[in-house]
Amino acid sequence: MKPIPVNPDRLLAELAELRRFGAQGKGVARMAFSEPDLASRALLAERMRDAGLEVTVDACGNLFGIPPGVGPCLLIGSHSDTQPLGGWLDGIYGVLCGLEVARASLESGGPRVAVVSFQDEEGRFGGLTGSAVWAGVMPLAEADALHDAEGARFADARCTVGRIAPVAEVPAGRFSAYLEAHIEQGPVLDQSNEAIGVVEAIVGMRGFTLRFVGQANHAGTTPMHLRRDALRAAAQFIRDLEEAFAPHVTEKTVWTHGHLAVEPNAASIVPGKASLSVQMRDPDSDRLETLMAIALELAETIARDRELALEIEQGPRFEPVPMSQALVAAITAAAETHAAGAWRRMPSGALHDASNVAQVLPVGMMFVPSIGGISHNPDEDTAPEHLVRGLVTLADAAGRLAS
Amino acid sequence: MKPIPVNPDRLLAELAELRRFGAQGKGVARMAFSEPDLASRALLAERMRDAGLEVTVDACGNLFGIPPGVGPCLLIGSHSDTQPLGGWLDGIYGVLCGLEVARASLESGGPRVAVVSFQDEEGRFGGLTGSAVWAGVMPLAEADALHDAEGARFADARCTVGRIAPVAEVPAGRFSAYLEAHIEQGPVLDQSNEAIGVVEAIVGMRGFTLRFVGQANHAGTTPMHLRRDALRAAAQFIRDLEEAFAPHVTEKTVWTHGHLAVEPNAASIVPGKASLSVQMRDPDSDRLETLMAIALELAETIARDRELALEIEQGPRFEPVPMSQALVAAITAAAETHAAGAWRRMPSGALHDASNVAQVLPVGMMFVPSIGGISHNPDEDTAPEHLVRGLVTLADAAGRLAS
Repeated sequence: MKPIPVNPDRLLAELAELRRFGAQGKGVARMAFSEPDLASRALLAERMRDAGLEVTVDACGNLFGIPPGVGPCLLIGSHSDTQPLGGWLDGIYGVLCGLEVARASLESGGPRVAVVSFQDEEGRFGGLTGSAVWAGVMPLAEADALHDAEGARFADARCTVGRIAPVAEVPAGRFSAYLEAHIEQGPVLDQSNEAIGVVEAIVGMRGFTLRFVGQANHAGTTPMHLRRDALRAAAQFIRDLEEAFAPHVTEKTVWTHGHLAVEPNAASIVPGKASLSVQMRDPDSDRLETLMAIALELAETIARDRELALEIEQGPRFEPVPMSQALVAAITAAAETHAAGAWRRMPSGALHDASNVAQVLPVGMMFVPSIGGISHNPDEDTAPEHLVRGLVTLADAAGRLAS
Repeated sequence: MKPIPVNPDRLLAELAELRRFGAQGKGVARMAFSEPDLASRALLAERMRDAGLEVTVDACGNLFGIPPGVGPCLLIGSHSDTQPLGGWLDGIYGVLCGLEVARASLESGGPRVAVVSFQDEEGRFGGLTGSAVWAGVMPLAEADALHDAEGARFADARCTVGRIAPVAEVPAGRFSAYLEAHIEQGPVLDQSNEAIGVVEAIVGMRGFTLRFVGQANHAGTTPMHLRRDALRAAAQFIRDLEEAFAPHVTEKTVWTHGHLAVEPNAASIVPGKASLSVQMRDPDSDRLETLMAIALELAETIARDRELALEIEQGPRFEPVPMSQALVAAITAAAETHAAGAWRRMPSGALHDASNVAQVLPVGMMFVPSIGGISHNPDEDTAPEHLVRGLVTLADAAGRLAS
């Protein structure tokens, strides 16, 4: 296997160039189908053409650069849209790594490598919308009915795709596998001084909302034993769940109560209602079911003991997505070569386009560190050395897979 | 001692009459110095004059009806303003009881009894404003600077007092003691099927806000051991405080977390900040200090253990107000006469005008039941039988005091 001779300076220069599209201070505002997003996709299309790739955009705005030749080839990429005000690396790092690997391989007569930027990963309309439609997870008609916070419809927004490149559908059959490099968006690699994360699985998620309903009362005139205090119930649930989960979780399990709404929420009134979000993530589907059952039983016990009503509203539910063993092996070998002793296998706690693409192709994912674990924030950053090490490792893995 | 021969039918008729001022459905909207408040005070002034009382309003809008004769006399009353949308009995019950006792006593050649309706008890501007100024607890200049939610100033609102009655100051020296009847606004009498509550003390209060400050993070990518979750700290505080307080509280102690604000309060983000109200009420000042110290120590321990910053903002602080022993004895004797076996001594968990008046006069308070403990709500109600039993008991106590 001959290594693909990537040029790190081109990656760093193009990252800086793309940062200007939608720049706001240190951050980037480049939501799907905004003017900066369309302009940046047009520039990406131009760079792909300059590299000798055949450029196509599909009806959803997913932008592909495919090398000449026949037969399925490796696809590398991510997304180039951002959060309403996001960081300068989230998504675009994986797209530009894909572009550099594809270009360097073409230049050096290496294996055929294609590149993609999926659309609306960050959820102006739905979240992972472009890859969901492309992988057949969501019908286009369903995506078309999505709308953003201001009411603009995905169906109307995507009429602009012709401004980016020639429009055509790009069947999954043109590719053999999908590789995605991404910033970690968490603190694990940064805290452990490691350079590469080899993703074993994108974790699954179970979410629901608990609503404890008691009785709002005067905080001075209602004796403790006559209260039906919804916030006390929610607090007990949060606290006791830590103990109830302890025997069942691993270091890869996380659970979060990110949202709590109290009614009437006044210092002198005993809370009558408390709505609490519960979100659990784990790479193991069975464990998620176990945790869900424990949480619901605890909530019911607390509501019964405190004479409260309990309402449960189901929320998001995603199954874990294991990465392809062949791709994990290739990234592992590359990491051992370029970051010996400074890499780890880990789950992805966040969802990525790879979650959808896994429905139609073998997928692999690789992380580089996020300084302080910060992401979805203008302060998001990664050391240049780590950006480069990621590119070199990805190119090595691509060489192993595509040869 | 000759009983004061009150006429319950006049009380019930006047309660129904006053209910029409500011009526909204079953409730009443009669905030201080609103048109319905001014009109109802003008009617009260007319009824006082018809009863043979000398009518005066002071600069704050406190309305007095004083019998002819010399020397200090007993004062009975409460307030006739309401919450933005309150019930039909809160305050006005005590004023009309005072009017009926004063009138019946004059008619029957009984002891001299005066009546008062204090202004802005319910806090359109400040809360207990009229009685605070009258009792010298708050300088008039300070009250004048208060403004309502729309920015209207107390100083401007009180320019209307001349529409109610002749304006003059009414020194506390004109009275020997103050008696206030009020609906309980809590569930204790209703649940125990008792008719009369003899108030021993208006409880004291300590309030403060705890603000736990950690780090907002992605709920998928941040491992549990690297989180600094502000909501988990607040939940632990609420839960552990129950245990920490248990050895120190009595059945008269209450404590409430009525307000909790989480930031950023999104299901997929580990909470970075949580602000929690803590409010404790007890008739014993020393106990309040003990509880305050326990709460602060617990909060500091939790913040330290979880590596969070802790900010503490002091809130309202009221000392307990004991009732006069002589007035408690008179109300007790009257309750034993008119509600034998169906009365209890109890604290007042809510503040009342009596809290302020206690600074200048011996004070006593008496409760009648609130159905379901409901108050500050259009559903507030009390059985007619209990309204009447309260009047008769109050008149009996007044006779014992004024003779």
